[in-house]
Amino acid sequence: MNIEIVTIGDELLLGFTLDSNGAHIARELAAIGVSVSRRTSVGDDATAIADAVREALERTGAVITTGGLGPTSDDLTKPTIAAVFGRAMHMDEAIIEALRQRWVARGWGKELPEANKQQGLIPEGAVVLTNRHGSAPGIWLEDERGRWVVMLPGVPRELRGMFAEEVLPKLRERGGPGASPVVSSTIRTTGVSESALADSLKPLESRLEGLALAFLPGWAGVDLRLTSSGRAAGESAALLERAGAELRVVAGQFAYGAGTDDLAAVVLDQLRSGGMTIAVAESCTGGLLGGRITAIPGSSHFFLGGVIAYSNEVKATQLGVGDDTLIAHGAVSEETAREMATGVRARYRADVAVSITGIAGPDGGTDTKPVGTVCVAVDVRGTVTSSKRQMIGDREEVRLRSTQWALDLVRRQLTATR
Amino acid sequence: MNIEIVTIGDELLLGFTLDSNGAHIARELAAIGVSVSRRTSVGDDATAIADAVREALERTGAVITTGGLGPTSDDLTKPTIAAVFGRAMHMDEAIIEALRQRWVARGWGKELPEANKQQGLIPEGAVVLTNRHGSAPGIWLEDERGRWVVMLPGVPRELRGMFAEEVLPKLRERGGPGASPVVSSTIRTTGVSESALADSLKPLESRLEGLALAFLPGWAGVDLRLTSSGRAAGESAALLERAGAELRVVAGQFAYGAGTDDLAAVVLDQLRSGGMTIAVAESCTGGLLGGRITAIPGSSHFFLGGVIAYSNEVKATQLGVGDDTLIAHGAVSEETAREMATGVRARYRADVAVSITGIAGPDGGTDTKPVGTVCVAVDVRGTVTSSKRQMIGDREEVRLRSTQWALDLVRRQLTATR
Repeated sequence: MNIEIVTIGDELLLGFTLDSNGAHIARELAAIGVSVSRRTSVGDDATAIADAVREALERTGAVITTGGLGPTSDDLTKPTIAAVFGRAMHMDEAIIEALRQRWVARGWGKELPEANKQQGLIPEGAVVLTNRHGSAPGIWLEDERGRWVVMLPGVPRELRGMFAEEVLPKLRERGGPGASPVVSSTIRTTGVSESALADSLKPLESRLEGLALAFLPGWAGVDLRLTSSGRAAGESAALLERAGAELRVVAGQFAYGAGTDDLAAVVLDQLRSGGMTIAVAESCTGGLLGGRITAIPGSSHFFLGGVIAYSNEVKATQLGVGDDTLIAHGAVSEETAREMATGVRARYRADVAVSITGIAGPDGGTDTKPVGTVCVAVDVRGTVTSSKRQMIGDREEVRLRSTQWALDLVRRQLTATR
Repeated sequence: MNIEIVTIGDELLLGFTLDSNGAHIARELAAIGVSVSRRTSVGDDATAIADAVREALERTGAVITTGGLGPTSDDLTKPTIAAVFGRAMHMDEAIIEALRQRWVARGWGKELPEANKQQGLIPEGAVVLTNRHGSAPGIWLEDERGRWVVMLPGVPRELRGMFAEEVLPKLRERGGPGASPVVSSTIRTTGVSESALADSLKPLESRLEGLALAFLPGWAGVDLRLTSSGRAAGESAALLERAGAELRVVAGQFAYGAGTDDLAAVVLDQLRSGGMTIAVAESCTGGLLGGRITAIPGSSHFFLGGVIAYSNEVKATQLGVGDDTLIAHGAVSEETAREMATGVRARYRADVAVSITGIAGPDGGTDTKPVGTVCVAVDVRGTVTSSKRQMIGDREEVRLRSTQWALDLVRRQLTATR
């Protein structure tokens, strides 16, 4: 099966929005062995939409669109594509009623606004795809020759949910067995540079048996992605597993996870097996580290909380950092970081505590402590470790890299004391 | 002038890469008044590239491509598009020599590898575009009827540099004076639904004098974007200002900013004018609110810090929330939120405090307090306000929406008490 994706919206032609919907659909299709032969983006213009969809249908007979299903007047997708199929529109009272109930349940009012009623209009003979994530339903429209267009909303969260729940199962049914999906696996590393990794992985490259190896650097570290294509699924899986295991050995202590593992989740798993709790003390990251940890469902079993100690007074009064420490070494020092960690661990009665203090910029740097200077400390039941580092990047990147580095120090300490 | 963008690369069809190059070119073209009528992405496949470029040329006569200019064997752009124009390829010795010098200067070796020599092949009659940011030169190819294709490399840094230095100046020349750039302005709202906004803005639509109005919903609220095209720059600016002012009046208290303003920055500005400090107490958001506030440079003048009170024990011991309150009303209640806010304000000696407690999901919901139940409270120098709401979305969205709502309550309280 060969599919084209058509994403719709003026914001795509103006470059206001990255086409993350098109990329998401492409990824999901590749994973089930369906190939995407072309992606097209057009604006909120009936002629442009009709042309793009008609051409794509002629080439492949299978098209997925996103965008243009909302209640506002620039949402043209449904009537335009209905016209391409020569179908009239009719009002689906069940959709209107579901929209009305949703509206009332949310306490937005008793009557559905006129603008929303347009969302109940669907092409004759279309299958309505349920939207559990928002108001605009999706549409599956197919002609007598079996050519079809699936219309999905442009809001990314709605699109992702509907694609998984309503579209993928139907495509799997149609696809049948024997497809050769593009499969990839990722090993996540942190604390090592791309070129150092590339050098140490060089001897391995000849043994990858045709798998593609990509280095993907970001603030979380360098991800190593292996990709297999043109093979049966079982063969790909075996190859990826073998090669992935070899990569992991070479990456050694720098490898912390696979796929989309978040280092915060890895650390929570370590706490779970050790039966330990954790608390945080954050200065320059201002809560980002706590925010990352609590992004993981179930973190409440191990994460007690923390202190955002942005001002020196809060460091002193709420964490017990000594005035003498702040005067002698400054707020950004390993000494202060250590007292922040031990302070929050004692006050929150946690087994483990981690602290971050640094200069995220753009201002606040000095000759001896330039922007990007960051200190972290970890206290595991009274054993305190600390470290200082010069981070690269802008304010946001320094802060994100700092949370990653702090989590990695926790991971290494928990690994060492296991 | 009307242009199409064709981006080339298997990774785009597999969804591994977001098409940031296409978006960048679109943005840059809009800013000089050139409209993009379609964007297409195809894989590293000669037939697909030829078809896409030929079709785009037929529609507009003006095409910009990215990708497929590198030294590897899957880089097919140049010979394929040369064939579309019926042109032969020839070796440009000047390119080879420049590549060789670059190679030697970088200390990569004395001789250019054979693979790189392919980069010296250019179509007959093409203009070579200098690449100061990498090795692959760009190509401007034009036929006797004035139809042209510009080929640029796919590495984003190289693309951006070359587009600015080599392409924009030439397009400006061709466009001549009197070009009419696409200009937009955005008004940010929060706390109101897209359809309610659309209803209340309806009477205004006829008075927008041809400006396009787009509703852009997200977790932060609904952005209203006005776009002007086909006008002189000065006229656009005046129209946008007048219409923007009218929209702001109708959006009323829901409008909090313009452009890419973050609500956290808006609140910091209010604190600055009031000479006030702020502290936070976060349960379900786990530090995200502090993280957002401290993302703003200079926030340290007004933000003292906060307590991440994830466990009930921390709420009691670190914020002074009464055991009786927790037992009678539960951790997710306006009562608890109020005591969290007053508790952190007193302990951190802040003028203003804001608290969040809620059930972010996916677990932890009950019949009376389902997932998405969130309470916030604001304490401005002893005057406490609180509110309870049912948030929609997954864990991440509930948490993000909660930080936005809490900041909005601070904004409204500070506006009211000013």
